[in-house]
Amino acid sequence: MNDIAPITDPSTPPTVALRLHPTDNVLVALRSLTAGAPLTEGLSAAEAINSGHKIAARPIAPGEPIVKYGQVIGAATAEIAPGALVHVHNLGMSDHQQDYGFATAATSLAPILDPATFMGYHRSSGRVGTRNYLGILTSVNCSGSVARFIAEAMARESLLEEFPNVDGIVPIVHGTGCGMSGRGEGFETLFRTLAGYGHHANFGGILLLGLGCEVMQIADLVDREALKDTARFRYMTIQQTGGTRATVERGSAILRELAAEANKATRAPAPASKLVLGMQCGGSDGYSGITANPALGVASDLLVRHGGTSILSETPEIYGAEHLLTRRAVDAPTGRKLIDLIDWWENYTARNDGEMDNNPSPGNKRGGLTTILEKSLGAVAKGGTAPLSGVYRYGEPIDQPGFVFMDSPGYDPCSVTGQVASGANLIAFTTGRGSVSGYQPVPSIKIASNLDLWQRMQPDMDVNCGEILEGTSLEAKGEEIFDLLLRVASGEKTKSEAQGFGAVEFVPWQIGAVM
Amino acid sequence: MNDIAPITDPSTPPTVALRLHPTDNVLVALRSLTAGAPLTEGLSAAEAINSGHKIAARPIAPGEPIVKYGQVIGAATAEIAPGALVHVHNLGMSDHQQDYGFATAATSLAPILDPATFMGYHRSSGRVGTRNYLGILTSVNCSGSVARFIAEAMARESLLEEFPNVDGIVPIVHGTGCGMSGRGEGFETLFRTLAGYGHHANFGGILLLGLGCEVMQIADLVDREALKDTARFRYMTIQQTGGTRATVERGSAILRELAAEANKATRAPAPASKLVLGMQCGGSDGYSGITANPALGVASDLLVRHGGTSILSETPEIYGAEHLLTRRAVDAPTGRKLIDLIDWWENYTARNDGEMDNNPSPGNKRGGLTTILEKSLGAVAKGGTAPLSGVYRYGEPIDQPGFVFMDSPGYDPCSVTGQVASGANLIAFTTGRGSVSGYQPVPSIKIASNLDLWQRMQPDMDVNCGEILEGTSLEAKGEEIFDLLLRVASGEKTKSEAQGFGAVEFVPWQIGAVM
Ligand SMILES: [Ca+2]
Ligand SMILES: [Ca+2]
Ligand SMILES: [Ca+2]
Ligand SMILES: [Ca+2]
Ligand SMILES: [Ca+2]
Repeated sequence: MNDIAPITDPSTPPTVALRLHPTDNVLVALRSLTAGAPLTEGLSAAEAINSGHKIAARPIAPGEPIVKYGQVIGAATAEIAPGALVHVHNLGMSDHQQDYGFATAATSLAPILDPATFMGYHRSSGRVGTRNYLGILTSVNCSGSVARFIAEAMARESLLEEFPNVDGIVPIVHGTGCGMSGRGEGFETLFRTLAGYGHHANFGGILLLGLGCEVMQIADLVDREALKDTARFRYMTIQQTGGTRATVERGSAILRELAAEANKATRAPAPASKLVLGMQCGGSDGYSGITANPALGVASDLLVRHGGTSILSETPEIYGAEHLLTRRAVDAPTGRKLIDLIDWWENYTARNDGEMDNNPSPGNKRGGLTTILEKSLGAVAKGGTAPLSGVYRYGEPIDQPGFVFMDSPGYDPCSVTGQVASGANLIAFTTGRGSVSGYQPVPSIKIASNLDLWQRMQPDMDVNCGEILEGTSLEAKGEEIFDLLLRVASGEKTKSEAQGFGAVEFVPWQIGAVM
Repeated sequence: MNDIAPITDPSTPPTVALRLHPTDNVLVALRSLTAGAPLTEGLSAAEAINSGHKIAARPIAPGEPIVKYGQVIGAATAEIAPGALVHVHNLGMSDHQQDYGFATAATSLAPILDPATFMGYHRSSGRVGTRNYLGILTSVNCSGSVARFIAEAMARESLLEEFPNVDGIVPIVHGTGCGMSGRGEGFETLFRTLAGYGHHANFGGILLLGLGCEVMQIADLVDREALKDTARFRYMTIQQTGGTRATVERGSAILRELAAEANKATRAPAPASKLVLGMQCGGSDGYSGITANPALGVASDLLVRHGGTSILSETPEIYGAEHLLTRRAVDAPTGRKLIDLIDWWENYTARNDGEMDNNPSPGNKRGGLTTILEKSLGAVAKGGTAPLSGVYRYGEPIDQPGFVFMDSPGYDPCSVTGQVASGANLIAFTTGRGSVSGYQPVPSIKIASNLDLWQRMQPDMDVNCGEILEGTSLEAKGEEIFDLLLRVASGEKTKSEAQGFGAVEFVPWQIGAVM
């Protein structure tokens, strides 16, 4: 998280401090305050307090937990008066915070008995698509250009005018698939990713396209993944087909057949429990953790209450706050899986001459973040307060409802690629500085953390969380996000879809040596 | 290298054994021979000999070096009669072969006093382009879609009709640039790669496009690389410009200005010494090492004699034969640099749970390859016999004539990307199974190793080295390749250019953890 910039828009109403969760005993200052400045709830600042810092919302006794985002971020080390600054001088890590406390804080959310519905594409797998694309899935970079040529040939023929229920043709092109070991975690990670796209409910049909001599063999994908329903899955290699021209001709004919089949699908009502939401933040700023992320957390909790699935990822960004997630785990084995991931990451970064950072930086502290838990909570806030129901590897199929974690780097396109491979049929992406991207075949909404971003990049942004700084509640904004997700799931285009994003953002996580 | 398949085309004339270099004392069998079968040069097979195996071309005494590809691959361990099989039973590694013998076998080639010329674009840097493209170079995946939108907008406006000397607009899009450490070899490798494209002579103008918040900062590239000639280099970030729509508008206006400037360039005569040839093999088969690669080696030697530069790469594929290159090094420090690379690779693969393989496999031995030197020589044969003048890191600028080595993985798109970043303005790509790819902004010729491939994939192949199996000499084929390179350098389109390849094959070598 970066420092919070001063709010410069003169039209901004004077919301000066924010409570991020009803159970919090601290507020966050939204601007720098002088002693005596009036806050919310009849409080006033007991001393000068900088923007982004924490303020006691009531008297706090020594040893009492400090609660922010509805989570315990440490304990008071001194008596703290209402309106006083809460920071390194009176807040420390409690012993309690140092252990994983597996499943000690998993409080189930009340299910909503009459769940929301959306209009989706019901697939024979039982999954429901939010879009109905045809995919040209490539095993290797070396078949990427030809995949695009096939899609371009179909576009020249205006093929899809005959098939109005098909949303488009999506070449899934990437930089890897060969020059790698044919076994081990790098290979298995790419394999899972490609398999996940192959099975994705947002594809009404898939053509698997390889070169022929690559490490990642099409035939293995077809066999191991049972991609054998020829009405929906077809495959070919350029070498066996006889080169570019022959492959474009044959591939176009195959896509015509797949399109005719995919065109039979129509939208039908589906319960919100069929939604799988991948959550992401990128280009974060000082507001991300106090506006867009907790608002998305409200939406995530709502989705879980409606029976759906929401996915938190970006393992390096939760580092140091894993204790908070292990305590929310539904059981000890689930919490243990998360710690195993953390251990793997420590090894992964160390063997690559890097390291994980588990201290708030001096800049973080100047910005008002006291402990590493609090820092990572800015990212974890997207995950609301629901129990942690499951922990998954990158691209592993997610087949259960609730709030889950999928391992990934923080790097946006790579993390989202894993979420889509795991089955996400919606993406919600918070941003403070402004990210522009799309993730075909899955629609992605962009959630702006501040008003300035919203105003500067409105054609790219779907939701304005800057309004939270003007007095809109996190709850209201979370409900707005949830409602938008239902509409988008039913076919409403997101800003990034309307602009045509998504042709280059498939970025599988590449682990291991390039050979 | 794979086993040599039987030649099945019944029209193939009976060329049954091939001498790969005039100084060789062995021939290679091109088909399986019975005892007594007539060979070339009045020889006959002294025993049954399988396809791909070596045959003594004259009497060889114990201890005498065995020479193949003009290189010593070991020493006879017994008396060998003309026409007899040369393999594990009578060929071993000589002690001599186990040491690096730095610079002991660097035999200069006679320079050609009236060098060939081509028609190229002379740049103020002193380099000469073989094409005149405009590039949209992205710092990060997150600006890739917008780079493509700008190029698409220009295509819709048919901008280039006004500027006939501009070959096209090339978005350089990739999967990395963020989610990585901002220092260390992974960062520096990507930095060199982007800088190399920024300076490439095949671009008449470059727009650098970033998102804004990425690790790989546009401003650093501009500053450290002196990309400051505003007639040729311009830059912008999406966040600073205000989102997608504003960036496409502003970027289109900038490209119009760059196009007007680039259009002033015209082709003019340039000496062959301005050619920098990146050599590559991909999708190799059993013929690659005896037809296409040594023919390209002849062309490489010719280019060196004309004063040009040819680049061998793909470090894992020369592993085990580094002794041959160190002995050809012009001096000990140059040879030592190669060994340092080899040591780096041993560490790189080991820390990624892999390993380098420095033994011929049982399959290699069945195919007729006796020693690791001989196996890797199939790849090294592309480099002809010229002295090794320099050793470079991936993407490092190559600023000298002669035969040089640039470190890279064997993975084709990744290796070629490094060669282009290092300054290659031509690519020659040998293939046995058939690779289809292109490397904008640099033209790439495809050299087929066998007749079957040539016939099946002719719209993708530029040169037929299958003719070597029918009696065309390596020398004649090498001259044909050299002549084609001059024509392509002057503007003749390669098969891959004519088909529009190159939009997805920019694959920078990603080293290190994705964070
Ligand atoms: Ca982030
Ligand atoms: Ca640990
Ligand atoms: Ca991210
Ligand atoms: Ca060594
Ligand atoms: Ca290669």
